[in-house]
Amino acid sequence: MGGDYAPRAVVLGTELASKTSSSELILVGPQDVLESELAALAQRPSNVTIKNASGIPPAHESPVLALRKRKDASILVATRLIKEGTADAVVSAGSTGIGMVAARTILRLLPGVARPAIAALLPNPTGMCLVIDVGANVDCRPQHLYEFAVMGNIFARQVLNIPSPRVGLVNIGEEEGKGNQFSRAAFEVLAETNKAAFDFVGNIEGRDIYEGTVDVVVCDGFVGNVILKTSEALATAVFALLRRELTADPVSKLGAALSKKAFKRVLKRVDYEEYGGVPILGVDGVFIVCHGSSGPKAIANAVFEAERCVSHEVNRRIVAALADRGTASVLAPVAADA
Amino acid sequence: MGGDYAPRAVVLGTELASKTSSSELILVGPQDVLESELAALAQRPSNVTIKNASGIPPAHESPVLALRKRKDASILVATRLIKEGTADAVVSAGSTGIGMVAARTILRLLPGVARPAIAALLPNPTGMCLVIDVGANVDCRPQHLYEFAVMGNIFARQVLNIPSPRVGLVNIGEEEGKGNQFSRAAFEVLAETNKAAFDFVGNIEGRDIYEGTVDVVVCDGFVGNVILKTSEALATAVFALLRRELTADPVSKLGAALSKKAFKRVLKRVDYEEYGGVPILGVDGVFIVCHGSSGPKAIANAVFEAERCVSHEVNRRIVAALADRGTASVLAPVAADA
Repeated sequence: MGGDYAPRAVVLGTELASKTSSSELILVGPQDVLESELAALAQRPSNVTIKNASGIPPAHESPVLALRKRKDASILVATRLIKEGTADAVVSAGSTGIGMVAARTILRLLPGVARPAIAALLPNPTGMCLVIDVGANVDCRPQHLYEFAVMGNIFARQVLNIPSPRVGLVNIGEEEGKGNQFSRAAFEVLAETNKAAFDFVGNIEGRDIYEGTVDVVVCDGFVGNVILKTSEALATAVFALLRRELTADPVSKLGAALSKKAFKRVLKRVDYEEYGGVPILGVDGVFIVCHGSSGPKAIANAVFEAERCVSHEVNRRIVAALADRGTASVLAPVAADA
Repeated sequence: MGGDYAPRAVVLGTELASKTSSSELILVGPQDVLESELAALAQRPSNVTIKNASGIPPAHESPVLALRKRKDASILVATRLIKEGTADAVVSAGSTGIGMVAARTILRLLPGVARPAIAALLPNPTGMCLVIDVGANVDCRPQHLYEFAVMGNIFARQVLNIPSPRVGLVNIGEEEGKGNQFSRAAFEVLAETNKAAFDFVGNIEGRDIYEGTVDVVVCDGFVGNVILKTSEALATAVFALLRRELTADPVSKLGAALSKKAFKRVLKRVDYEEYGGVPILGVDGVFIVCHGSSGPKAIANAVFEAERCVSHEVNRRIVAALADRGTASVLAPVAADA
């Protein structure tokens, strides 16, 4: 029931996914609303069922308060399906903040994880660069970035099909010793990691993200959120500027019309709908959050992404990788509902 | 002598500036090299002179070490011209790090300034957004952002001709109380500022920078550098992708040729050559650092920018504004050559 075009876009995305998916897909929300949405489809998919729940909480409250008031909110009911063992994964186009609260409160953390993290995908010339964390942890200790690297590395291998992800640390210069106190300390932690855990390639800058010289980028959630928001805003501004100038005179307008296919190819490369959603990693269950304005294609891709997380055992691998290092013992525990 | 195309581009830029400038322009570098560059011009400008100095230090050393070895490096000689009262401003296309060391070591800090800062200009639909700091101070205290706001506000008013700059704090949400420990503390400091000092509009995000809803953006130098580098890298990547796709098939290629003027207008908006260079603010002298790949136009625009800093008394205004608040007394002194 979350997202700008819910429940219609979510139901249509589920229908789209159901055509090639062998999973059982459970729509979670008000029974009557979802029944009539399903009835409106050309054919009701046989592998889609409904689990009754109330709509999303009002958006003007803090996530914690909103969820406290509405115990049967669709996101809580859906997340409980994982906890009960009825479902393997949740896909939501609701707010990331609410998703994070639901995931942490109900699913709790994976053994060895001190901080769950949100991983975003940014396009590069040959594929995607995973940036982790992009907002769940605004104040981090250097050791948390080790966890992010382990989790991001496993997600990149298992879900993005990158055989040997190159893991970099966001910094303001590539040489060792560059950066602020935090990034220098994080570099030390990452550099002493066994190459078997992940391939740490050192400090990286913005151009590494967009030139494709790195596959996984770790940073605290404040910096990651700034990277994500700045990138979204600049891309939007550049395309708006192009649109304005390409329609400002008749010749350019004609030229733009002829180049339409090229522009479509460009937009496809930068379109978040192509890859689905961002995972919340570190919680005991698969949880994918889609962009609020997701259409059916993004929802379907997020379902496939969730399926890959489950079938490739991303969470089991994360627990095993962290246990190898014994991270759990060196990091103070964090209350699951903090 | 600094920059990818020095000394040729610097000499040509100086020639360009000399045509409309009433300033005396002093080229600083090896006398013989600069003489032959000037001799190669169609007409030797009457308001351009030469001050002998050696070339730039090798780039593979740290700025401090490099400058220690080469006491007559052009950047040091040029900066000493300010200290001696022979010059009012320095324009350099050399490394920002070396410029910062020269400025701090020779010029020292303005009274009331604890931390000098580098301010970058990012384009928005109607003009420019000033981001300060973008790398001089990677570890800040919240009070330093107050200084950055004062300095950025004065530069925006006096040099960018923005009558009432709106000053925002980089954060990961617009509501008060958002962010990490540092940004929440910085918000407190900025919010309690008298509106006469500057117009603090609160927390901002990436889209505010690129939509033009804010004129001056303050952040620590780590975050500012990440914003700058991410933006440069993404813009480069988007234009590279456009170029690739627009030449991938003959029809798109024809369309792109017809839209050439529109693309030129877009590039002009995002071209750093249009505005010159970035100021180092907080040191006792005007110091503008140009992009390393600056051509003559960027150099000339930086000269005009430096002239505006001098004629509009940017530094005198900064000292007066900081004295009003008495910032000097609440901030611990920082060694000028630290």
